[in-house]
Amino acid sequence: MSRRQDRRERRKEEIVSVATEMITTAGIDSFSVNRLAEELELTPGALYRYFDSRDHILAAVELEVLREFDAYFAAFEAQLASEEPLAHIVGLAFAYAALEELRPERFKLLSRFVSGPDPVVSDEAAESVLQPTLELLGRFATAYQAATDAGELDDELALQRAALTWSCVQGVLDRRKLNRFTHDLFDLEALLVDLLASLLVGWGADRAAVEHALTQRPKRAALATLLEPLLEDT
Amino acid sequence: MSRRQDRRERRKEEIVSVATEMITTAGIDSFSVNRLAEELELTPGALYRYFDSRDHILAAVELEVLREFDAYFAAFEAQLASEEPLAHIVGLAFAYAALEELRPERFKLLSRFVSGPDPVVSDEAAESVLQPTLELLGRFATAYQAATDAGELDDELALQRAALTWSCVQGVLDRRKLNRFTHDLFDLEALLVDLLASLLVGWGADRAAVEHALTQRPKRAALATLLEPLLEDT
Repeated sequence: MSRRQDRRERRKEEIVSVATEMITTAGIDSFSVNRLAEELELTPGALYRYFDSRDHILAAVELEVLREFDAYFAAFEAQLASEEPLAHIVGLAFAYAALEELRPERFKLLSRFVSGPDPVVSDEAAESVLQPTLELLGRFATAYQAATDAGELDDELALQRAALTWSCVQGVLDRRKLNRFTHDLFDLEALLVDLLASLLVGWGADRAAVEHALTQRPKRAALATLLEPLLEDT
Repeated sequence: MSRRQDRRERRKEEIVSVATEMITTAGIDSFSVNRLAEELELTPGALYRYFDSRDHILAAVELEVLREFDAYFAAFEAQLASEEPLAHIVGLAFAYAALEELRPERFKLLSRFVSGPDPVVSDEAAESVLQPTLELLGRFATAYQAATDAGELDDELALQRAALTWSCVQGVLDRRKLNRFTHDLFDLEALLVDLLASLLVGWGADRAAVEHALTQRPKRAALATLLEPLLEDT
């Protein structure tokens, strides 16, 4: 990479980093390219030499969040004590769920991008983050495939099970919103335990093995420690 | 009710009906009290004699959507051919899922209120719609209790199962967003079938009985016919 290209790359990273901070602090709706340019001491015209549009900046921010989350999952998998596939699946689900409390603003941003009813950015800009989103799903699919290969689950599409697990965990976490009225109307931890137990038993796992895997689920504090070195900026 | 009260009630209904139409057509973000007043040929001041704030109007719109959906579920339950509790549970889940395609704008509005990461209205205004939301959940809970009483499911909290089913169905439907890039990346119907089969078997139901209940699930066209007389205005 030439020195010029190198500088360009560093500048792009700086733009995305400041944009991420602005959005996780003040929300996506109030995000404006002019304010970002001001914060970076650049002219808006200069910004557009790095990103085609506001939507492309937002997509780059989503990509940044996905990358951080992916590094966290990689760290989680690297330290998995057990080789047990069911414990791996349960662990990934709880590691994902923990992000909602440990990194609320980033999690909210990702939820809005991938689940919210309205598109956040144009299809063209969003397309660039489809692959990293699917890679996250791929971690679940790999764990499901291992459980199937080990004969712990009956034989079915691992990717479908990955998609279903992720969708359901996300759906459970979205219930937090109703909890603001009646404290603990829904016990999300209990719902997640019930969810994983039912899905895994429904897919053919031995009930006792599933219950054992659930007792081994990662603790919030341990997950927080994993996250710390990865996301120092929050 | 005095004639004056009666007129006041009709006026309130008219306001909510026009607000619902504006919001389901143009979205919630562009909704303004001034534009609503203009549409109704009222002064903004007159509007505020009926509703305390923009948030209270939005909450009334959500209540309206919930009432329509509740009438649809009541009509669905009234025509249930089978007394079979598992078929009832499966039916409610698919009847709920069908709303996303049959009444997309209303469904999106409800999703944003109950699941979206950001609050749509103040807690005080939203509190008035908590009860109707829980009533919808109550229909699932009643069906789960009946299945437990009939010995088809093992004994556990029906309300927790209702909450989990609803959350998961909602989570699966939210995957439609990623389908806009790769057509049929996720087969939502297959995911819902897999979800209900796994949850019910996981909760102790006989697999063959669950599969039978799933073959009896309501057809989209039949559900559309149920909706027609209820929501004539869309």
